[in-house]
Amino acid sequence: MSKKLRIIPLGGLGEIGKNMTVLEYGRNQIIIDCGVMFPENDMYGIDLVLPNFDYVIENQETLRGIVLTHGHMDHIGGLPYLMRHINAAIYGTSLTLGMAGRQLAEANVLSSAKMHAVGDKESIKLGPFTVHLFPAAHSIPGSVGLVIETPAGIVVHTGDYKLDETPAGGRTTDLKRLKQLTRKGVLALLADSTNADRPGRTPTEQVVADTLDELFAQADGRIIIATFSSVLARLQAIMDLAVKHGRKIALTGRSLEQNVALARELGYMKVADKVLVDVKSRIPDDQIIILSTGSQGEPRSALNRMAKGEHRQIDIHQGDTIIISGGTIPGNEEDVGRMLNRLFEQGANVIYGRLAAVHVSGHGSRDEMRIMLETVQPRFFIPVHGESRHQHLHARLAAETGLSSDRTFILHNGAIWASDGRKAWLDEAIPANDVYVDGRLVGEIGETVMRDRQRLSQDGFIVVYVPVNGRSKLAGEPQIISRGFVHMQESSDLIDLARKELKRQLQRKGRKHDPKETVRNTLQNFFYRETQSRPVILPNIVRV
Amino acid sequence: MSKKLRIIPLGGLGEIGKNMTVLEYGRNQIIIDCGVMFPENDMYGIDLVLPNFDYVIENQETLRGIVLTHGHMDHIGGLPYLMRHINAAIYGTSLTLGMAGRQLAEANVLSSAKMHAVGDKESIKLGPFTVHLFPAAHSIPGSVGLVIETPAGIVVHTGDYKLDETPAGGRTTDLKRLKQLTRKGVLALLADSTNADRPGRTPTEQVVADTLDELFAQADGRIIIATFSSVLARLQAIMDLAVKHGRKIALTGRSLEQNVALARELGYMKVADKVLVDVKSRIPDDQIIILSTGSQGEPRSALNRMAKGEHRQIDIHQGDTIIISGGTIPGNEEDVGRMLNRLFEQGANVIYGRLAAVHVSGHGSRDEMRIMLETVQPRFFIPVHGESRHQHLHARLAAETGLSSDRTFILHNGAIWASDGRKAWLDEAIPANDVYVDGRLVGEIGETVMRDRQRLSQDGFIVVYVPVNGRSKLAGEPQIISRGFVHMQESSDLIDLARKELKRQLQRKGRKHDPKETVRNTLQNFFYRETQSRPVILPNIVRV
Repeated sequence: MSKKLRIIPLGGLGEIGKNMTVLEYGRNQIIIDCGVMFPENDMYGIDLVLPNFDYVIENQETLRGIVLTHGHMDHIGGLPYLMRHINAAIYGTSLTLGMAGRQLAEANVLSSAKMHAVGDKESIKLGPFTVHLFPAAHSIPGSVGLVIETPAGIVVHTGDYKLDETPAGGRTTDLKRLKQLTRKGVLALLADSTNADRPGRTPTEQVVADTLDELFAQADGRIIIATFSSVLARLQAIMDLAVKHGRKIALTGRSLEQNVALARELGYMKVADKVLVDVKSRIPDDQIIILSTGSQGEPRSALNRMAKGEHRQIDIHQGDTIIISGGTIPGNEEDVGRMLNRLFEQGANVIYGRLAAVHVSGHGSRDEMRIMLETVQPRFFIPVHGESRHQHLHARLAAETGLSSDRTFILHNGAIWASDGRKAWLDEAIPANDVYVDGRLVGEIGETVMRDRQRLSQDGFIVVYVPVNGRSKLAGEPQIISRGFVHMQESSDLIDLARKELKRQLQRKGRKHDPKETVRNTLQNFFYRETQSRPVILPNIVRV
Repeated sequence: MSKKLRIIPLGGLGEIGKNMTVLEYGRNQIIIDCGVMFPENDMYGIDLVLPNFDYVIENQETLRGIVLTHGHMDHIGGLPYLMRHINAAIYGTSLTLGMAGRQLAEANVLSSAKMHAVGDKESIKLGPFTVHLFPAAHSIPGSVGLVIETPAGIVVHTGDYKLDETPAGGRTTDLKRLKQLTRKGVLALLADSTNADRPGRTPTEQVVADTLDELFAQADGRIIIATFSSVLARLQAIMDLAVKHGRKIALTGRSLEQNVALARELGYMKVADKVLVDVKSRIPDDQIIILSTGSQGEPRSALNRMAKGEHRQIDIHQGDTIIISGGTIPGNEEDVGRMLNRLFEQGANVIYGRLAAVHVSGHGSRDEMRIMLETVQPRFFIPVHGESRHQHLHARLAAETGLSSDRTFILHNGAIWASDGRKAWLDEAIPANDVYVDGRLVGEIGETVMRDRQRLSQDGFIVVYVPVNGRSKLAGEPQIISRGFVHMQESSDLIDLARKELKRQLQRKGRKHDPKETVRNTLQNFFYRETQSRPVILPNIVRV
């Protein structure tokens, strides 16, 4: 490798999730973030999606450190899988490291990592890179952006941010420090594109606190709030409001309990012991707030179990006020809708996004993106953290601020952006495909299996056991087994007809046919004619 | 049946779609609407969902007629399936009947129906029922609400409506006629609940026309607009704007071509022949608008084929302005998002809901619902056309208007609301389950098959062929076939290990085991231990 700076996004481009970026100079690498993505609805049976770590693993001896911008899963959730393969020093603020460390400990790979807590205005020297942190307002405390000095020039990575003047966690995005650190000029800006299709500014987190304050004042029964366990800033606001309204707080949901414990331990969350009570405590309805996971309608989450009447401690009843304080992630609309319906059916007063301002995004909108671009004034611009449409809209916004379009690079995962400090170009890309996690299987499930699952989900399958003799002639009764196609008992006539057709075709054929082909073609045609479905057909020819 | 009025919703409650309501008095029935529902994402392989027609088919000799409120699929799409089983007279405005008639003709059941076109301020006598139509503003012309005189009192069914003073189609909702027809007092109101979680009023359709006007003025290349083929009111506005901006219109997408042809034929749409051109015509980019289906990102729709570069006539290129003029139906977010990304990647300027007011709902919001309740002042209220949460929120709105909560009935499909004209109660419910259409199969696919498909989509299946002798002892090598579980070639080690484990267990067992059970248990345990997956396992024991 010659002496040039290379920036390699391994995730987070063309998608929302699994953010990971490599910076490389000569034989020196640093990694920024290492996230997971939650599967889309058509990733059948998949639990998680990881970045492809091959390039990083192959070049692990050049790795000078991993820097984390904040503790959300789409920025740290890939670490337990990466750290199976490499040893590395990991840097971040104490809450971020606490959350990452818990992930590593649960996966039994904590010993592969040297954890270094850094203040959110400190700097780290990693080989030829000097990484300066600056505070960023986001929905979790301890979030930072990065100003990275490299021999080729300064690179700014915003991390996730909004320009919130009254964030619940207390930290505003420190544009002053950012400006100071970038006085010498910025070679490249990598900036969060999440809300590039939202005009104006994202409302401040204070709006949510104000709405909750009103709702708490109106509620005369129990209050149940579902939110992301990771929006720790908002959890703090809820704790404060509970005290104001004379209510205790009970937590339900494992991730919520863990995150609150960690944030309190590290001083990121301030709440008196006596405010927190066990969910099993008997406390009058008008003196309790139950904080729960499940704002996405996840089948096994605490709130969904309540909605279905399957929660061990909590039954929803008339008089409950239930607040869904979390935006619906695209793809979860049906699950959330079903859960809302069930909660209403049980008599609760349910408040969700359409009815009141109970959630705001943790990412800045177009006006904030514009301010970021104008603050940093980069020579080159790489919109990151977003699907293609967000990257493109962010790029057009940059053009409006005067950045000529040949200085903006809309990259995909695995692309290699290279620069000598003056020019910039693309080197040959490296593989950066999605790596699927399915139970214990990591990377074993590929496109073929995914296509099979898709087809099975639509039309099921048919296995045919056909006994033939040495001359490929039928030597017994064919057996047909099926699942997910039609109900075998109720549709026995159809299956009988299929068997007859199969025998007719097999008997008609001479010696020279491939019995597998004959079986597959016969049944595919027969079933498509009869049902317009195309089940997967597996002929099993047994020579007897 | 005694002489009482019974109202039986067969669809449309607790769901968005397949609207159908039966009114019954003695041995006289009428049906209002007969719609289909499009499947949710977890209805694997299902094409359409129908109401359960059993009750209607059993009582067909009492049917006095079917009245349609408008021509959208969730109100007429079930007719081709119902009319296979019964003969009936069908009433509606001419456009509604035209759209229904086309459905029936395509299914070869038009001869079962006697079609009677009715003006939108006319009345129909059907046995003991007199049905008065009144015009309703909705996204398709020819929409009506119904005031139904029955021996027990007057029933109002709003159909789908908004109180739009400037609808693109020209008709406002005729509250004056409604008021006149209901002077004697209303026994029951059945009202559209779709937007019960939207505060205020739904913006007028004119907003969309204004936005499109601006966008047309800005565009200097080709304009491509994707919208629902059924929002005929908006299509008229687009035709008018095309003329204003000196552009021709080309249609692509079969349903769009059919609907425009029908609406023009019946006088509901006015556009000069010379404005409409073939999509293959060579017309300069700045003089053409392409109207396309595909606002929901449907895989085979015209716009999605363009996005993927698979449309025969149209390649997306830089300079194209693409307008997605349709709200995203819950559950379609991922498909729409992917399509948008592809269109951006091809260089188009894509305008969608977050970026401009290019779509408004065809249903009224809370303030409009309040006006409807106050206009009709019913004795009893039945919120219809919505999921549970919408029904509940609509009920609470009614309570705010002074209707005591014991006069509101939140029903589910199959419930029977009965009244003698003074009191109201619920009779015993009838079956009104979802009936799935999968290819040619109507109703054959039930919960068992759906569960199998769900499980197959997650973990695939394994078929094991095990030759045993008369004493249930293994008599040869077991064969394992799998799809959708792991890749058979790439994971051959895992399959080998499974086969060994299976042989070991089968050899260990004495005579008295059930070889099927042994095979299933062994492999289930083995694969769960190794992969944490639970593929469907089908043992096939062959005695040799």
